[in-house]
Amino acid sequence: MGCELCERDGGSILWRDEFCRIVRVTSHEYPGYCRVILNRHASEMTDLDAGERERLMRTVFACEAALRELFRPDKINLASLGNQVPHLHWHVIARHTDDRNFPDAIWAAPRGVERGPAERRDTVTDARLGARLAALLAPTDA
Amino acid sequence: MGCELCERDGGSILWRDEFCRIVRVTSHEYPGYCRVILNRHASEMTDLDAGERERLMRTVFACEAALRELFRPDKINLASLGNQVPHLHWHVIARHTDDRNFPDAIWAAPRGVERGPAERRDTVTDARLGARLAALLAPTDA
Repeated sequence: MGCELCERDGGSILWRDEFCRIVRVTSHEYPGYCRVILNRHASEMTDLDAGERERLMRTVFACEAALRELFRPDKINLASLGNQVPHLHWHVIARHTDDRNFPDAIWAAPRGVERGPAERRDTVTDARLGARLAALLAPTDA
Repeated sequence: MGCELCERDGGSILWRDEFCRIVRVTSHEYPGYCRVILNRHASEMTDLDAGERERLMRTVFACEAALRELFRPDKINLASLGNQVPHLHWHVIARHTDDRNFPDAIWAAPRGVERGPAERRDTVTDARLGARLAALLAPTDA
């Protein structure tokens, strides 16, 4: 399809179903950073029908819930931009007041070096985050 | 409440109900830029119940639909950040390949001056955008 996110993921796949997948972004500065990626190709949320939009957002909010539990962030950032890769995906990012860009968006010029404690990067393994997502997204939750 | 967005809006209110409001951001560079702001105070989407989340997103997607119709953008950007003002609000932004930051986020350092045609700023009045939003958000749509 010629679409980067249709074909590959820069990170570990933590969870997936036939509709979308959750990838943990490989990021030193942002250990609590996931992407929720639609499997089929579409560019905008309003290209989906209402049921699909709700399903994708439910996955985004499960991600938010898991990141809040495991990283205790000062803020969650949610964004669907896609200017560089116009394939529907959501950024779900745990932000801390001592991270590299706070209080700016992560896409802004860094305010300095990462000031957050290194432990934040090491304590939440992919396995732990993936297990929490699987629990939050289990069909019995619906 | 000591929260900037609880109390004032930097722009024109285009639509509102008892739950949230849509403000057009005053921006020379981004004429197709709205904010959807929750009326009551909450910081994160997962502080809302599922019905409230869906209602807020429905308003965000109506905004996206109106901006797509009226600005014919190359991409829509959606974001709920709130690092500076932790009161739930969504940025809904019509992006064009010739805008100041494309393909970066609008929060990144500008790549240059605005290159988009001035007409884009003048053709869509608040009244026109507000009328489209009112139509898309009319109760009969539900």
